[in-house]
Amino acid sequence: MATDPAWWALSHAQVVFEAVATIAFAASGLIEAARKKLDAVGVVVVAGLAAFGGGTLRDILLDRRPFFWVQHAGWLWVLLGLSLAAMLFMRARHFAPTERAMLWPDALGLGLFTAGGTQIALDAQLPAIVAVLMGTVTAVFGGVLRDIVCNQIPAAFSDHRPYAVCSFAGGWVMVGAHALAWPQWVALLATAATATLLRVAALAVGYTLPTWRGGR
Amino acid sequence: MATDPAWWALSHAQVVFEAVATIAFAASGLIEAARKKLDAVGVVVVAGLAAFGGGTLRDILLDRRPFFWVQHAGWLWVLLGLSLAAMLFMRARHFAPTERAMLWPDALGLGLFTAGGTQIALDAQLPAIVAVLMGTVTAVFGGVLRDIVCNQIPAAFSDHRPYAVCSFAGGWVMVGAHALAWPQWVALLATAATATLLRVAALAVGYTLPTWRGGR
Amino acid sequence: MATDPAWWALSHAQVVFEAVATIAFAASGLIEAARKKLDAVGVVVVAGLAAFGGGTLRDILLDRRPFFWVQHAGWLWVLLGLSLAAMLFMRARHFAPTERAMLWPDALGLGLFTAGGTQIALDAQLPAIVAVLMGTVTAVFGGVLRDIVCNQIPAAFSDHRPYAVCSFAGGWVMVGAHALAWPQWVALLATAATATLLRVAALAVGYTLPTWRGGR
Repeated sequence: MATDPAWWALSHAQVVFEAVATIAFAASGLIEAARKKLDAVGVVVVAGLAAFGGGTLRDILLDRRPFFWVQHAGWLWVLLGLSLAAMLFMRARHFAPTERAMLWPDALGLGLFTAGGTQIALDAQLPAIVAVLMGTVTAVFGGVLRDIVCNQIPAAFSDHRPYAVCSFAGGWVMVGAHALAWPQWVALLATAATATLLRVAALAVGYTLPTWRGGR
Repeated sequence: MATDPAWWALSHAQVVFEAVATIAFAASGLIEAARKKLDAVGVVVVAGLAAFGGGTLRDILLDRRPFFWVQHAGWLWVLLGLSLAAMLFMRARHFAPTERAMLWPDALGLGLFTAGGTQIALDAQLPAIVAVLMGTVTAVFGGVLRDIVCNQIPAAFSDHRPYAVCSFAGGWVMVGAHALAWPQWVALLATAATATLLRVAALAVGYTLPTWRGGR
Repeated sequence: MATDPAWWALSHAQVVFEAVATIAFAASGLIEAARKKLDAVGVVVVAGLAAFGGGTLRDILLDRRPFFWVQHAGWLWVLLGLSLAAMLFMRARHFAPTERAMLWPDALGLGLFTAGGTQIALDAQLPAIVAVLMGTVTAVFGGVLRDIVCNQIPAAFSDHRPYAVCSFAGGWVMVGAHALAWPQWVALLATAATATLLRVAALAVGYTLPTWRGGR
């Protein structure tokens, strides 16, 4: 099976998937850490939490080892290098990526992490709702940990712009694809595209989630 | 043994126990999330953390799987449905449960989670002090996680009204009952009643824990 | 091997190591809890998190059981007793340990926890960068959890005085010692001394980590 070209392509595509998503999320951590005036250690740690925190929390919940960043330890060097390079670059240029510039990479990360996380949980034979939840944890809790460490209410829970719900909705595409026995790469693509496009569409339209008004 | 009526009644009673406690704790999360003006996602997540966070953290520490909400995944739907129903209801009525109305259900949750958590840890052959600590983690850390996500110092650590100590004291009843080989349902009931009544009594009397004055 | 006097001395020395480091870290939790006016429960919990949080998080990440405080449950009593004794003593004397008085014990804890954590991860055959990271998690994340519970940005990430980097640097001494097959006690001592002395030297010299200036 390891010599099947489709399997080879798929496993490599997934590595690229995870790389893009990971870097986009690390960047969100870099920006947040800079905003809070953290030092170099804080910048690297918060970038790392944003990038690997969601998947690591999912693996702890699923009792799954090794973690992504243990199996591919080279990623820790990439993260360290990129964080330090970004710090040097930003200092020299007085330049910071705007929220607008981050929109697409972040939405891409949301979709890709949702797809990967839900698939892993379904492969572990978990109930559909739990699998979808695991996809959402993978996609969203890196950002949640980033915000908790930066001492603010997680944006995913208070921003009123749909984020976790896009991941949650996307996860059900994976559940359906799994039930219909779609090829894995189709399932991954459909799931990621659903979550990503829902996120981009919601921002474009300016849709906001309801607040609990009665709580006043 | 599965056909023993006492065992049957007990295992069903424990399910009811856990349901009542879980809903009471979820409600505390709903109220907190509303107070902090979280969006719908935040309301559901904080309710879920308050309800399942303590037991999940205990299971991670004990390396115990599956989690309650994986084995009984229907509970995730219940939580989701109740949270959304509560949001709609509160919006329509401009009504929110007061802290006073929550006192008894919350004290009940404290007792029941303490009993269940301590029992599980004793069954895992852990030392008495660790088992009691696990009962307290089960009962208290859902609320702690709720408060951390809502970006405030956990009420359990700063409220000065006894909460965790009631759970801690109750846990020792379970240790004693275990040592004396009391029937399981008596042990559960005695433990839960001790923690719950200590909490209610402490509030009624207005007893407060000492602060560290020297720290000023 | 259990009768080998060197092994015996080493395993006892390591227990003493861990005791000193644990008490120093617990004290940092006590001080922080007092500063935030937590109640007695909060003081004990924050002291416990500061003391055992880093090692416990490392063990969760490595899927390693039993935890230190489960295997040596007597330590929980020590922690409880010391915390309450400290509270009583401080109240009577209106005395609190200054940050200056804590410098050496805290730097000692940093070195000892780094050495122990890195060694455990190397013994588990993890890649060098992961092992060093685990040493840093062991040494630093007790304080991080302490600060998160106390609702502030972790000092380790925002203080600008080197702390985690001293641990990170020290960890590489352990990696080198492991590669060169140094005796275990030499490796532990060299690692701990490196991290501790780097910390003390950095504070003495007044060196500060760079901030991300571009983030403004």
